[in-house]
Amino acid sequence: MLDATHDPSLRSFVDSANDPACDFPLQNLPLCTFQRDGGAPEVGVALGDRLVSLRALAAGGALPGAPDDFLGSLSTTLAARGLAGVRALRPALSLLYRDGARSVVAEEALVPASACALLLPLPPRSYTDFYASIHHATTVGAMFRPDNPLLPNYKHVPIGYHGRASSVVPSGAPVRRPRGQTKADDAPAPTVGPARSLDWELELACVIGRGNRLGEPVSLADAEASALGLVLLNDWSARDLQRWEYQPLGPVLAKSFATTISPYVVTFEALAPFRAPRAARPAGDPQPLPYLDDARDREAGAVDLEVEAWLSTERMRARGEGPVRVSRGSFADLYWTFGQMIAHHTSNGCNLEPGDLLGSGTVSNAAPDARGCLLELTWDGPGRPRRPIALPGGEARTFLEDGDEVTLRASAEREGFRRVGFGACAGRVLPAG
Amino acid sequence: MLDATHDPSLRSFVDSANDPACDFPLQNLPLCTFQRDGGAPEVGVALGDRLVSLRALAAGGALPGAPDDFLGSLSTTLAARGLAGVRALRPALSLLYRDGARSVVAEEALVPASACALLLPLPPRSYTDFYASIHHATTVGAMFRPDNPLLPNYKHVPIGYHGRASSVVPSGAPVRRPRGQTKADDAPAPTVGPARSLDWELELACVIGRGNRLGEPVSLADAEASALGLVLLNDWSARDLQRWEYQPLGPVLAKSFATTISPYVVTFEALAPFRAPRAARPAGDPQPLPYLDDARDREAGAVDLEVEAWLSTERMRARGEGPVRVSRGSFADLYWTFGQMIAHHTSNGCNLEPGDLLGSGTVSNAAPDARGCLLELTWDGPGRPRRPIALPGGEARTFLEDGDEVTLRASAEREGFRRVGFGACAGRVLPAG
Repeated sequence: MLDATHDPSLRSFVDSANDPACDFPLQNLPLCTFQRDGGAPEVGVALGDRLVSLRALAAGGALPGAPDDFLGSLSTTLAARGLAGVRALRPALSLLYRDGARSVVAEEALVPASACALLLPLPPRSYTDFYASIHHATTVGAMFRPDNPLLPNYKHVPIGYHGRASSVVPSGAPVRRPRGQTKADDAPAPTVGPARSLDWELELACVIGRGNRLGEPVSLADAEASALGLVLLNDWSARDLQRWEYQPLGPVLAKSFATTISPYVVTFEALAPFRAPRAARPAGDPQPLPYLDDARDREAGAVDLEVEAWLSTERMRARGEGPVRVSRGSFADLYWTFGQMIAHHTSNGCNLEPGDLLGSGTVSNAAPDARGCLLELTWDGPGRPRRPIALPGGEARTFLEDGDEVTLRASAEREGFRRVGFGACAGRVLPAG
Repeated sequence: MLDATHDPSLRSFVDSANDPACDFPLQNLPLCTFQRDGGAPEVGVALGDRLVSLRALAAGGALPGAPDDFLGSLSTTLAARGLAGVRALRPALSLLYRDGARSVVAEEALVPASACALLLPLPPRSYTDFYASIHHATTVGAMFRPDNPLLPNYKHVPIGYHGRASSVVPSGAPVRRPRGQTKADDAPAPTVGPARSLDWELELACVIGRGNRLGEPVSLADAEASALGLVLLNDWSARDLQRWEYQPLGPVLAKSFATTISPYVVTFEALAPFRAPRAARPAGDPQPLPYLDDARDREAGAVDLEVEAWLSTERMRARGEGPVRVSRGSFADLYWTFGQMIAHHTSNGCNLEPGDLLGSGTVSNAAPDARGCLLELTWDGPGRPRRPIALPGGEARTFLEDGDEVTLRASAEREGFRRVGFGACAGRVLPAG
């Protein structure tokens, strides 16, 4: 739903928020959890190059309720105010920080983002990762099952698996290369050692804002209303571990060593101008079953985001070179929407809880440079050797090397609206311990 | 390690604890979380037909520390006192409740168990389910993949998958039959409806007492020292949903509607007299990789428990008949030990947290009546129709019907030691909503 907060002409008295290249204009107002000077973690909102301390605003009487509602993490705020209370922050902040509205309380609540540590916005109790890009599922399927790349359930079931919530880390946290069992096809037995095929996966994740009771499914019509917003997610994957362990129960150790998410939850309200029709299914594909289909989801279930992965190596950084973009695609292209994923996840009565993460799965489009992981980017077809991607300075990568840093980005742009961005979701690979 | 608390001649001044058939003698002392008269949940220890309120003992000065350490759930106690502090309760309670030691404080801390609601002992943040019975893996594999029942990784990797923690419920909570997608082999498309092949799975789960940091594996030598004890676990499974959804990423909705655990955590200290050598691998099987092998685990990594599943139907109860035993096996027969599961789970650096549950997977032995789920009990070989199990009064079951109640039990007995039991892990099937 569009309202006054989406007006593209709105400017803030925080100058940096008015820069057209800025991810965090007054029209975005994403939520985060931050810490300054080693103090208690608190909940903030990004605006230009500042963070707004909601606790300071509440203490100054500019927001209703107790300042302690904003201590700890967004979990505290959701528990204290509910999802509706969190949503009500947006119009309030839009007024408080508008050009011309400058007040002492609003100004004193601003903190330079560069002076703060950004933490996990909220600790997820559960993390489920879906597999919603049919391009990803088909390409990866062709590698693992050449004769049977896309399984018969794919076009009916939003396929996913339970991920590991405890190892979800915030952007910037280092990622240690895991050790594990791998087995070459021609080896008689597995060996144990550092993973050799370390990969990223470019994803977005939906953050649940309001749970459902066990035994009470959430309908597609109500699904998005239970969600707070989206973050970027890097589902780091050790492909050699994955290949050996994943049958018959799915990936575990290939993924559970780390999952990085971006610190800012971009709310569905901020994304309202950027909704798009659900990707059309090719002729001949089955239509979704009734519990996964309604007019709203067909017409506006997708979110039109540009998504990107950037890579920088130790040598590039030593030479003073910035990261290079290695993937660029559209998030609107998924086979399943987050609404469908929520409706499916709860269709058996499973209870979601505030803070739960639902990952999209790797976002890959049909174009070769719009594949969201190295496993796909370096794939040159069955039986052919992988084709490494070329990097500046003569380097090349088939999989990640120690010291490599991967940064995911996403942003939304549309004629007549102010561009909004997600900030960075970054992690650097440390050598195996 | 055996000590004075295991002395089989020890008797308690709580008479019911001295009954040889009682699951909870003074030698057991399992931990639980209970609630009386709608009051605040608190931590207790089972003794005969009583619960000991640890809060009351601490308030009366009979245990060191703050009474509030025992409010909420075992999570509170672990956070406040650490695993070592929880372990120290056992010798203290063994002295306090010994025959002849009767004191006013100890007596006043006793509550009739029948007057209390037993809750989840602690809410797991993460639940991982393994697949440690090779008999289960082979039989189920033969159904789903007749040509390839046991996959090549099984004898090298303790296979498991992330389960859903939010839908773990305490014994006694009703279990609603889930709805979901199923597809008959000869049907052109899936349909949605109540699951028709609802099953239980008889498992034990290890409760983690002390977490490890992300990036720091727990060695097999240290693995069990990080665990608090065991509970019974019923991994309810909708087989028709599972068959359709599980490839390629494993089961999700077929399991995530409910998982029941027993309320009493039987500690590894209480189980010390009942340790057994790890099940011998048949000649020709590979030995475990070094990180999954050491002398202690070979000699005493298993736990010698008798495990049972009991079934009662609505008609049986209407006729006043008690439940019948439908499965009885040994837990010592698993291919992988809990120590190996912990060492494997953390081998890539994944962090476990206090309260995490690690399920064993269905406990099935080679004998046909020692299979831990209906999927196996009613299996009559490839191509043959399922053979329903016969129940008293002419009823029969291929899978569970509405109103059926499944109760899991486990106990340990050994010459020269007092028998200890786990209590019941029960759940009754409600019709689909």
